[in-house]
Amino acid sequence: MRLATIVDSGRHRVAVVSDDRVLVLEGERSMREMAAEGLAALETVQAWVEAQSDAAWQPLKSAVLGPVVPDPGAIYTIGHNYRPVDAPDGDPDAPPRPLVYGKAAASVGAHGDVLAWDRSVTDNVDAEVELGVVMGPEGSVFGYTCINDVSSRDEWLDGDQWLLGKSMPGFCPVGPWIVTPDALDPADLRVTCSINGESIQDGRTSQLRFGIAEVIEYLGRHLELRPGDLIATGTPARLATPPGPGRRLAAGDLVTVRIEGIGELTTRIG
Amino acid sequence: MRLATIVDSGRHRVAVVSDDRVLVLEGERSMREMAAEGLAALETVQAWVEAQSDAAWQPLKSAVLGPVVPDPGAIYTIGHNYRPVDAPDGDPDAPPRPLVYGKAAASVGAHGDVLAWDRSVTDNVDAEVELGVVMGPEGSVFGYTCINDVSSRDEWLDGDQWLLGKSMPGFCPVGPWIVTPDALDPADLRVTCSINGESIQDGRTSQLRFGIAEVIEYLGRHLELRPGDLIATGTPARLATPPGPGRRLAAGDLVTVRIEGIGELTTRIG
Repeated sequence: MRLATIVDSGRHRVAVVSDDRVLVLEGERSMREMAAEGLAALETVQAWVEAQSDAAWQPLKSAVLGPVVPDPGAIYTIGHNYRPVDAPDGDPDAPPRPLVYGKAAASVGAHGDVLAWDRSVTDNVDAEVELGVVMGPEGSVFGYTCINDVSSRDEWLDGDQWLLGKSMPGFCPVGPWIVTPDALDPADLRVTCSINGESIQDGRTSQLRFGIAEVIEYLGRHLELRPGDLIATGTPARLATPPGPGRRLAAGDLVTVRIEGIGELTTRIG
Repeated sequence: MRLATIVDSGRHRVAVVSDDRVLVLEGERSMREMAAEGLAALETVQAWVEAQSDAAWQPLKSAVLGPVVPDPGAIYTIGHNYRPVDAPDGDPDAPPRPLVYGKAAASVGAHGDVLAWDRSVTDNVDAEVELGVVMGPEGSVFGYTCINDVSSRDEWLDGDQWLLGKSMPGFCPVGPWIVTPDALDPADLRVTCSINGESIQDGRTSQLRFGIAEVIEYLGRHLELRPGDLIATGTPARLATPPGPGRRLAAGDLVTVRIEGIGELTTRIG
């Protein structure tokens, strides 16, 4: 099942996505509340969806998508978690344990958002594709999604102070929707990021050093993971080809994060 | 006004504290929701409180306190933010900007809690007294409280991976209540921490390098502060006298964090 959060008369509503159509669910449950109910609760949703007439669906292209989880309790990102493709075994930079970084929960953004920020704080910002995990109850996976882990590369904000460099409003585009685990095997998905159509990252989730189960287990030993929390599982290396490493995001850029089996998350830089 | 979150039949309720009595407020608003309404909304609360009979109050000692904000959207802590008393001007370690660290929102605990954690993750943990700020709307202060910024001192968890070292369940005792800004000037309050009655920290908020307004302004430039967010504004140096730096928290210890004008927050180590 694919689940999106759509904006309907100023409110967030959860909707089922099927091909090029969406069906808004009844009731007022947020995606976080649905995540808390877990995958078992989706059987009821599935039965309800199947009982609806074609007229209840609306075209996907007419829907305004919100952040998949508009109010995550926390966002965790995993650093240095992709093995280089040319040194699959002998990587000296391999961390002994998952490297965990946080992003402010208030930094979530939606597919199609325009992302603008105060350039006097940082003007050295880049994008990173990450397979996102939406947590369900008791350490379970409720769904997979695309995350763009927008981060400052300023020295002050990219070292010890990474929390500040990753947390400006809109720095965590997440979407366009969630794909539930029954519909997606995350073991070997292509993950890419491009700026204005030029590829800057191109990897596969099979390069993950610490897999999803390991990351969840490790995080869960150090803190309480709660339903609706987001985990960005890491990002492949920047490609050396143009525009190459060091290309800063600039006004007008269109950033496209794509994950095989999920979809495409785009952000326009304002 | 003093506001606490108390546990009443398994639910969190906001209560007014006056001397040795508490009065549970009507309705279902959480402390976070009250913080979102801001200080102006407390005038109505004050009028309602004054209209209640003595019989509506209950003894404070019979109330079970919860975390002052049971569900903060975020917790930020400020590092190295107390000037040493013996080098008020010439401190070479003074950071040029506030040093911001995060704690998982899920780590909050209550006054009187027993704090136990998985010693196989870390057995090198200490306590830190911090003046806590509960945010109201639009960068305002809703209240002040005591925070114990419990943190691992293991090398792996006290450097780049500080988020993990500060976020285990219960590592953020917060309370016993909030004092609203009309009732407290935070400029020069004594802040102390003791283990089993032996003092380990003793400072004054007048030693803060970056004051509360500066910290809020700085944080607000880098991320969206939201009502109910907690800021732990920093901690004075460990005293060199016994038990001295390096004393690890051990089962049975009673940690007491005290802030002048607010009160005392105690945690038993389990």
